[in-house]
Amino acid sequence: MDGSDHLAHERSKAQFDVEKMKIVWAGSLYAFQVSNRMARLVAGDPAFRKENRDVLSRKELFKNTLRKAAHAWKRITELGLSEEEASWLRFYVDELSYAYVHWGMFVPAIKGSCTEEQQNKWLPLATNMQIIGTYAQTELGHGSNVQGLETTANFDPKTDEFIIHSPTLTSSKWWPGGLGKIATHAIVYARLITDGQDHGVHGFIVQLRSLDDHLPLPGITVGDIGMKFGSGAFNSMDNGFVRFDHVHIPRNQMLMRVSQVTREGKFVHSNVPRQLVYGAMVYVRQIIVVDASIALSRAVCIAARYSAVRRQFGSENHEISGTGVETQVIDYKTQQSRLFPLLASAYAFRFIGEWLKWLYTDLTQKLEANDFSTLPEAHACTAGLKSLTTSAAADGIEECRKLCGGHGYLSSSGLPELYAVFVPACTYEGDNIVLLLQVARFLMKTISKLSSGRNYKLSGATAYMGHMEHYLIKYSCNVQKAEDWLKPNTILEAFEARAIRMCFACAQNLTKFADQSEGFSELSTDLVEAAIAHCQLIVVSKFIEKLQQNIEGNGVKQQLETLCYIYALHLIHKNSGDFLSTGSLKPKQASLANDQLRSLYAKVRPNVIALVDAFNYSDHFLGSVLGCYDGNVYPKLYDEALKDPLNDSVVADGYGEYIAFWVPCEVFIAIASRY
Amino acid sequence: MDGSDHLAHERSKAQFDVEKMKIVWAGSLYAFQVSNRMARLVAGDPAFRKENRDVLSRKELFKNTLRKAAHAWKRITELGLSEEEASWLRFYVDELSYAYVHWGMFVPAIKGSCTEEQQNKWLPLATNMQIIGTYAQTELGHGSNVQGLETTANFDPKTDEFIIHSPTLTSSKWWPGGLGKIATHAIVYARLITDGQDHGVHGFIVQLRSLDDHLPLPGITVGDIGMKFGSGAFNSMDNGFVRFDHVHIPRNQMLMRVSQVTREGKFVHSNVPRQLVYGAMVYVRQIIVVDASIALSRAVCIAARYSAVRRQFGSENHEISGTGVETQVIDYKTQQSRLFPLLASAYAFRFIGEWLKWLYTDLTQKLEANDFSTLPEAHACTAGLKSLTTSAAADGIEECRKLCGGHGYLSSSGLPELYAVFVPACTYEGDNIVLLLQVARFLMKTISKLSSGRNYKLSGATAYMGHMEHYLIKYSCNVQKAEDWLKPNTILEAFEARAIRMCFACAQNLTKFADQSEGFSELSTDLVEAAIAHCQLIVVSKFIEKLQQNIEGNGVKQQLETLCYIYALHLIHKNSGDFLSTGSLKPKQASLANDQLRSLYAKVRPNVIALVDAFNYSDHFLGSVLGCYDGNVYPKLYDEALKDPLNDSVVADGYGEYIAFWVPCEVFIAIASRY
Repeated sequence: MDGSDHLAHERSKAQFDVEKMKIVWAGSLYAFQVSNRMARLVAGDPAFRKENRDVLSRKELFKNTLRKAAHAWKRITELGLSEEEASWLRFYVDELSYAYVHWGMFVPAIKGSCTEEQQNKWLPLATNMQIIGTYAQTELGHGSNVQGLETTANFDPKTDEFIIHSPTLTSSKWWPGGLGKIATHAIVYARLITDGQDHGVHGFIVQLRSLDDHLPLPGITVGDIGMKFGSGAFNSMDNGFVRFDHVHIPRNQMLMRVSQVTREGKFVHSNVPRQLVYGAMVYVRQIIVVDASIALSRAVCIAARYSAVRRQFGSENHEISGTGVETQVIDYKTQQSRLFPLLASAYAFRFIGEWLKWLYTDLTQKLEANDFSTLPEAHACTAGLKSLTTSAAADGIEECRKLCGGHGYLSSSGLPELYAVFVPACTYEGDNIVLLLQVARFLMKTISKLSSGRNYKLSGATAYMGHMEHYLIKYSCNVQKAEDWLKPNTILEAFEARAIRMCFACAQNLTKFADQSEGFSELSTDLVEAAIAHCQLIVVSKFIEKLQQNIEGNGVKQQLETLCYIYALHLIHKNSGDFLSTGSLKPKQASLANDQLRSLYAKVRPNVIALVDAFNYSDHFLGSVLGCYDGNVYPKLYDEALKDPLNDSVVADGYGEYIAFWVPCEVFIAIASRY
Repeated sequence: MDGSDHLAHERSKAQFDVEKMKIVWAGSLYAFQVSNRMARLVAGDPAFRKENRDVLSRKELFKNTLRKAAHAWKRITELGLSEEEASWLRFYVDELSYAYVHWGMFVPAIKGSCTEEQQNKWLPLATNMQIIGTYAQTELGHGSNVQGLETTANFDPKTDEFIIHSPTLTSSKWWPGGLGKIATHAIVYARLITDGQDHGVHGFIVQLRSLDDHLPLPGITVGDIGMKFGSGAFNSMDNGFVRFDHVHIPRNQMLMRVSQVTREGKFVHSNVPRQLVYGAMVYVRQIIVVDASIALSRAVCIAARYSAVRRQFGSENHEISGTGVETQVIDYKTQQSRLFPLLASAYAFRFIGEWLKWLYTDLTQKLEANDFSTLPEAHACTAGLKSLTTSAAADGIEECRKLCGGHGYLSSSGLPELYAVFVPACTYEGDNIVLLLQVARFLMKTISKLSSGRNYKLSGATAYMGHMEHYLIKYSCNVQKAEDWLKPNTILEAFEARAIRMCFACAQNLTKFADQSEGFSELSTDLVEAAIAHCQLIVVSKFIEKLQQNIEGNGVKQQLETLCYIYALHLIHKNSGDFLSTGSLKPKQASLANDQLRSLYAKVRPNVIALVDAFNYSDHFLGSVLGCYDGNVYPKLYDEALKDPLNDSVVADGYGEYIAFWVPCEVFIAIASRY
């Protein structure tokens, strides 16, 4: 490595204060400082190196992950890190292990669903890692349909115990991370049965393995579910299965905050609102939205830097410079039209994640005050945004990989693993299509209530539907030239018109069906499209709102404005069919949006490298030779290649057995000598 | 496994002759019989089992692949298989190795670019596997821009040799399969230099490794470029790098069919047309189109079968049956609207592949007769269709994986590896965007020639452009009700109108630029979209042409008609922005297309399992527990999980070192005893 910054020229072109943008991205100066400190701690610790995890066998990989997780815990306790710091440290270790499920799902579930007494017992054990927990909901045969779970928890009044049982193969718990080989305890979701009566699905704390020798307890069959997408990625995690054969647990291991079973076997509700369960879903999904912005921004950072380093074609156009060097691929419009909207999306998703965090706090306060009025909207909103951002981020990561050409296909680009790790977010915590159907159901209910004429109060991100009449009858877009698209209100109105008209058309079509559920099923693809239109509007509107805040730093707000317009206008171009078919735009106006988009690409171009620098990702965290900060790509690619175990020996293992036998040299020499 | 066919009910619903459809898919009865025989041979041979290749370390995986390749060669020679049979056998072994590049690129290059004398020398060596060849074009710093390659081949008249040299790091050859550890020879592309004059890029046969001990020859630094996307996948192949330090080769190892260097060092052309080089590109790309249909159809087969097995939600709707079973996910409209167009695409790509094969044969005959008139169109057509089909197939495979929910993320679903193996086809043999720009350039030239008023003869798939005036001025779509979309001509005209209007708009906009190359660069995203519209039209029109042929078998043609309409109408829905903005359709007509699409989904539904059975893929070839023929998915998923090495021991390797130390039982017992 030559030590020089091959991207210095790019960085010098930036028209804004990168350090200030880092703080905007992080959310606050404090958040920047904490995360930055933890990132450096991890990056500087040789025990956390990411070397060669993709060439390891499954067993080696898994053991290596256990080592890192143990080292992380050691550092956390040695340094006496706060919960927040510890969570950042684990984040930057960037290797999935049981610890993610333990801290990310088991501990929060104990906090959210246990009584105070139960928390007093279980939380210290969990937070001191004296037990390791997992979260066992999904079954082999049951994912999206939680109410269809088959595992049973039968109350036995004689022993004051629940009997946890897997009645069928399909009722095997399947997928929980950490379950396969590590977790000592699980929160198991099962049908609660008392005296033959089924009370639906509830959670139970079940010990799986002995704390002495780690062997599974009697009645428990547990193991790993095998390899998953990619090398490295989720294979460092022991996603597992478990089957219960009449496993007895004490009655007080039911999660009792909301409902309980009494000593007599009576099923009762506490005065804690059941709606808190939905609050927990909002919590988990807003975290996933934040994950989406992080995953996408990593990919964008790699693709942007490499696109500035990589040159291809076009030396003939640069004869003026006399250098004969080829054109940076980031200067091709086709590259820009694929990459820049993803950069804008990364920022858009960052801000929507921030807003959802606020929404969750607001919702929790309301729920605790027994105000459930905003819950349906908040739930639909979070579900929709989880779906929208994860699908866009997953596709965007793959697009970034393709933008890196052939080298993006190398593991050393970091992009294959980034994709493999992120893409299950499209499926877990609610399949993205199922979630959009939930949003659509909520939207149809909203329209039906609005149409009923009663005084229905719209909340949150559906407030715009109050202008339904305006948008259905009066609205027409007033864009006449490309610059007209640089008005936030013009953009918002176009998105609102499109969303309302699509929703309204669905609602109209639904009335044609005698059976509503048949209609909903028949029109479900239209409903999904309407839900997407609604969710895209939310992201655009919250990005615009963000820009109305006070944002410090020279040129920072201007860059964000450009990104906001790029985000909105690229959506108009991509979904022009929606805008045109609903008459929200005229063909000429859609075409002007596209013209404006091109100008915006030119405007953002000099700032792109600085805009990805603002993510503040260390080379360790990025884990990509193509995305390295100094842009010294080629020597690093070469060095990484040399590390592959196949290069340990000059002649490949297996040559003697499988190759040499059919290269009989005498024959060759005999033939060759004829020439 | 219980031996029963869990999909029998689905199969009994089919309304056509599946056995006859198998022949249509294969291309002919003969093709069906040969491929079927080879598929069974491979599936029945324990040496070809695909067990656990994803859990192996890189070295183990590679050695295992060498073993299989050696066994394949052994069987091929033992059974005296024909070239065609051998190629099918290797295909069904379904594990990428040096053999693919040797047979797929090295041997064809010898045949296509060597003189007869050279062929007499090299072909017997290659076809008897006495040498193993690779094809070294791409360099670390140069992919798409072949003319930018840096490797030099300097003619030394003193010794009558070429000196092959890598002047820079970026000139290292990078990517060739089989190069890393196995190939003994390579066709190396390098700048030919005689007497200081650069004659551009030419091919040379260079020996890399000793045939005695397999060590690299002096001056040659060679190795593997490291891990790539996914586990298994291309990691069984030794994609490699090589650097040449003044390596001398005899003059007669230049590929001399088209151009030569004489003993005196004079660069001369033979009378063989140079255009044959483009013929070779057409050949390789039409094979990739066939690959796309195969890869996509495998994924569709898996997703369709699993969607028929998997049930989720909806038991409440089935109370009539009294079974309380959940709904098959294949019956959800959202599932259908994602899966069925992919099924239709698989068939569409199969037929376009067949047509391209004909096109290549036709082109070769013309080229050999010195008729180059159809070459530009054939070249653009193949480039565009390679781009279109590989992008759609790659996206489609991932969509199929997502359609399988969480279980699609398991390696045992077969889908992750299928994606990882196929997706580089979007990049190799021409980056898909670069190829579309080539198509666009051709289309702009065509329009410019047409507009020039000269009598320009349109050939092949651009013939429709002869009706430009009609489409620009007179045409309007006459669809008034959904059934009107069931007329091939109506569909064709809409696609032609859209393509012509998009191309013409680009051509018009180009005239606004003084500098044509600047205009082309500025408008490149529009040009790419126009090229896609043109290519989609070709696929639709060739599918329609296929239906005009005599097709045997009860109900076979009817099913293909339904698939053809689904293919075309889903494209109209997906690209409605194009159709609406060009005024090729009115919003109402686009909406009717969507209504018709829904009816077609209902129509094809009972036939879907039979339509994927018609691909005739063995369980061995599919390599997917979700896609197994008998649909007995859950026990197979469970059995596959148990095979993971992590399940070899009950307590995980590493438990003692990395887990037990922080579960101090005394502490736990002390805390627990408080409750």
